Amino acid sequence: MPGVLSGLLSLARLAEEVRSGGVSPVELVHRTLERIGRLNPTVNAFITVLEDEAIRQAVKAEREIRDGRYRGPLHGIPVSLKDIIYIKGVRCTAGSKILAQHIAEYDATVTTRLRDAGAIIVGTNNLHEFASGVTSINPHYGPVRNPWNTRYIAGGSSGGSAAAVASGLTPVSIGTDTSGSVRIPASLCGVVGLKPSYGRVSKHGVIPLSWSLDHVGVLASTVMDAAIALKAIAGYDPSDESSVYAEVPDYPGMLERDIGGLRVCLLRNMELVDDEVAKAFERCVNVLEGLGITVEAVEFEYAGLVRDCWAPIRLGEAAAYHDRWFTEHGDDYGVDVRAMIERGRRYTAVDYVKAVRLRAQIRNSILRILDQYHAVISPTTPIPAVEIGRTETIIDGHTLDIYTALTSQTILYNITGLPAISIPAALTSHGLPIGFQIAGRPYDESTILRISHQVMEKLGTKQPFWSSVNFHS
Amino acid sequence: MPGVLSGLLSLARLAEEVRSGGVSPVELVHRTLERIGRLNPTVNAFITVLEDEAIRQAVKAEREIRDGRYRGPLHGIPVSLKDIIYIKGVRCTAGSKILAQHIAEYDATVTTRLRDAGAIIVGTNNLHEFASGVTSINPHYGPVRNPWNTRYIAGGSSGGSAAAVASGLTPVSIGTDTSGSVRIPASLCGVVGLKPSYGRVSKHGVIPLSWSLDHVGVLASTVMDAAIALKAIAGYDPSDESSVYAEVPDYPGMLERDIGGLRVCLLRNMELVDDEVAKAFERCVNVLEGLGITVEAVEFEYAGLVRDCWAPIRLGEAAAYHDRWFTEHGDDYGVDVRAMIERGRRYTAVDYVKAVRLRAQIRNSILRILDQYHAVISPTTPIPAVEIGRTETIIDGHTLDIYTALTSQTILYNITGLPAISIPAALTSHGLPIGFQIAGRPYDESTILRISHQVMEKLGTKQPFWSSVNFHS
Repeated sequence: MPGVLSGLLSLARLAEEVRSGGVSPVELVHRTLERIGRLNPTVNAFITVLEDEAIRQAVKAEREIRDGRYRGPLHGIPVSLKDIIYIKGVRCTAGSKILAQHIAEYDATVTTRLRDAGAIIVGTNNLHEFASGVTSINPHYGPVRNPWNTRYIAGGSSGGSAAAVASGLTPVSIGTDTSGSVRIPASLCGVVGLKPSYGRVSKHGVIPLSWSLDHVGVLASTVMDAAIALKAIAGYDPSDESSVYAEVPDYPGMLERDIGGLRVCLLRNMELVDDEVAKAFERCVNVLEGLGITVEAVEFEYAGLVRDCWAPIRLGEAAAYHDRWFTEHGDDYGVDVRAMIERGRRYTAVDYVKAVRLRAQIRNSILRILDQYHAVISPTTPIPAVEIGRTETIIDGHTLDIYTALTSQTILYNITGLPAISIPAALTSHGLPIGFQIAGRPYDESTILRISHQVMEKLGTKQPFWSSVNFHS
Repeated sequence: MPGVLSGLLSLARLAEEVRSGGVSPVELVHRTLERIGRLNPTVNAFITVLEDEAIRQAVKAEREIRDGRYRGPLHGIPVSLKDIIYIKGVRCTAGSKILAQHIAEYDATVTTRLRDAGAIIVGTNNLHEFASGVTSINPHYGPVRNPWNTRYIAGGSSGGSAAAVASGLTPVSIGTDTSGSVRIPASLCGVVGLKPSYGRVSKHGVIPLSWSLDHVGVLASTVMDAAIALKAIAGYDPSDESSVYAEVPDYPGMLERDIGGLRVCLLRNMELVDDEVAKAFERCVNVLEGLGITVEAVEFEYAGLVRDCWAPIRLGEAAAYHDRWFTEHGDDYGVDVRAMIERGRRYTAVDYVKAVRLRAQIRNSILRILDQYHAVISPTTPIPAVEIGRTETIIDGHTLDIYTALTSQTILYNITGLPAISIPAALTSHGLPIGFQIAGRPYDESTILRISHQVMEKLGTKQPFWSSVNFHS
């Protein structure tokens, strides 16, 4: 048993052990809490750890499984939630000072669904304040540290979720993604990050950032694990007005289906990435071609307008949400988040409405491309993780602030609402992970999960390769 | 034949005559053009009259019908379109100076559908400039005059459409409704005005005012005629991103179905109307009860917030659309339209986003009410038509500007997207029409058409009563 628990086991492996009785949920939770206690002071991936409640749930799960009432692969498995998702009776800080003592009065729908699947919620993950940045350098709860090198950022805003998975604290964490906040930390921490289609997973009980761009997503160490988690949390929810009624297929059961003959493309004019990332991307393209997939480059006329479209929506909507606190509690925000809210407050209704109209054009343009291709590929981030405190990066002679650089490949799929996944593609010469992104047709998570599962098998970026993670600092 | 054509015949009656050969489409179009030529200088309901083309179409229709290829009740019937709906090769002014020479390059979807149904488009109707007001006092093309008293406004913005129908120039006109622009002139001119559900009728080829509030609707002299026209123009259109895929039922065939046992309500806190309107409304309530319908009053918590919600959306979206012209052509707008655009430009993204969020709450609140009731009733306008040039009105001691007064009962169904119809309820002691509004569940136009058809039968506000219209001036 210690052998089973010491490594970074996937959810699917753990589930087999739990189901067969090889591992007891109570023991699993104890080991998880012990590991969090030991490693969290270094990675800072958790804000709240729910020790007693987790053990109570584990005892219940153990009894149910022993009595033959096994619920499925999440039963008895420890999971964590970004600290922006409500867990009834538990504080939900959103990584902020303003909500430091905010106790959730109900479970988010995603929380309920995880509970229904038998998962054991062991705690809440650290994040960029109010999910409003991509470094997870949190002025109130300390920075999340990248498990691959703790002097480096984990990415964000779901940085604690990615770091928790990358360091084997929980096999799955639920995050949110408004501009790349699931995929960016996944890319930087070398895990899988899935942002489903807009409306696919309920946001009821999730503190909003920008309503029309917010998505709930999954961080996991394998595509199979992400598929299992998505299957559990996806589905229509009348409590969320943006929820969409669409069939939820058996994602885990579809991963091995043949992908030969599929067609994917990359978008021209969106290729500003550093050399090591470009090389890793090329390797992914070769792997795709080796799997019988056609890869082509296509023109994308809106490449230069994606950020212009995104900014008034992302910043305007966030400013509207924060209007309730901003005037009286402006000083309680971190410097960067406050600056973003101030920027959002300066946009006019005309700016916002024009951005929304432009969004429709961009979405239509991508949908036309997706008439011809099953998916669009890109690097997830044009650079790997940077050192904590670094504010700029240079890519191909262009100086970019870290926020702009890290979100440059991801925001397209927030404004269009298309599903997108990041998988670990390679390590840089400095031993930092590089992500590979695959985006798909609306509600067609299955196809990007299938492709990414089979690509990741070929890349060998699954365990045990991945379990070589160590804690450098 | 002169007997048939001299009065204000309904579309349904005319269709019978055309089908049976009692009236020839060519003769009908000639008489229509003659009548427009005679009466339009007084009512000013048309901007462009398509004489030659209409006759050409009539000849074609006549041949088709004679050859046994009868298409249905619109075949060979003259109709008109608000001059904001594209007719290929015809100028579409939107009632503006800016677009005075703007030639439409394609047919709007609604135009195509009318043509497919065999209707003959005889011209374009005058309107409030850019559909941006409710008086149809147009500084560029002259005011539309109310056929009941030409010193009075026709209402707007589809004022020319309502006046055309009320004065028997065309039995049906297609209008648009962003804040009440179909229902208000219907109310003031004593005709039927139907605003279908948001997304029910395509807006492709219709110049926008405020995208998320704009609806294409129908003006007609009877509910049957409105039902026939709606059946022809409704349905999903991939060219309009707000178009909704929803079955289009046989509206005309459902009008006589029993409505006994239905439940309707009126909203408390939205009852500021003048005495004569209140009396007419009471009479409608009595008629409903006489038809076996339960009428109850319910609380509506958002009554005081409807306009706060509407304003940033209506004005912000319009300002975004006009941003292309405003800086360089600001002087080309009428004073009122220019002031509205300026007001829209002052709203922030935060204002707009908060309004959109509030809209969702208001919509949910109304939908909860509509779980209990089949429809919501109200006066369409709290006052009848006012004299051209009047800017204020006093209702129950409150002074209101005309715009605010006339839209006070209608904008709720623009922000919620629910279908709503206005039918003629009575005449005031001064001989001006008063409208009665019925709003229904999403995509359930059938129910409000059935109710309004049967109420109108009882009220006796159909022909021949209604054909007593004279041209006072």
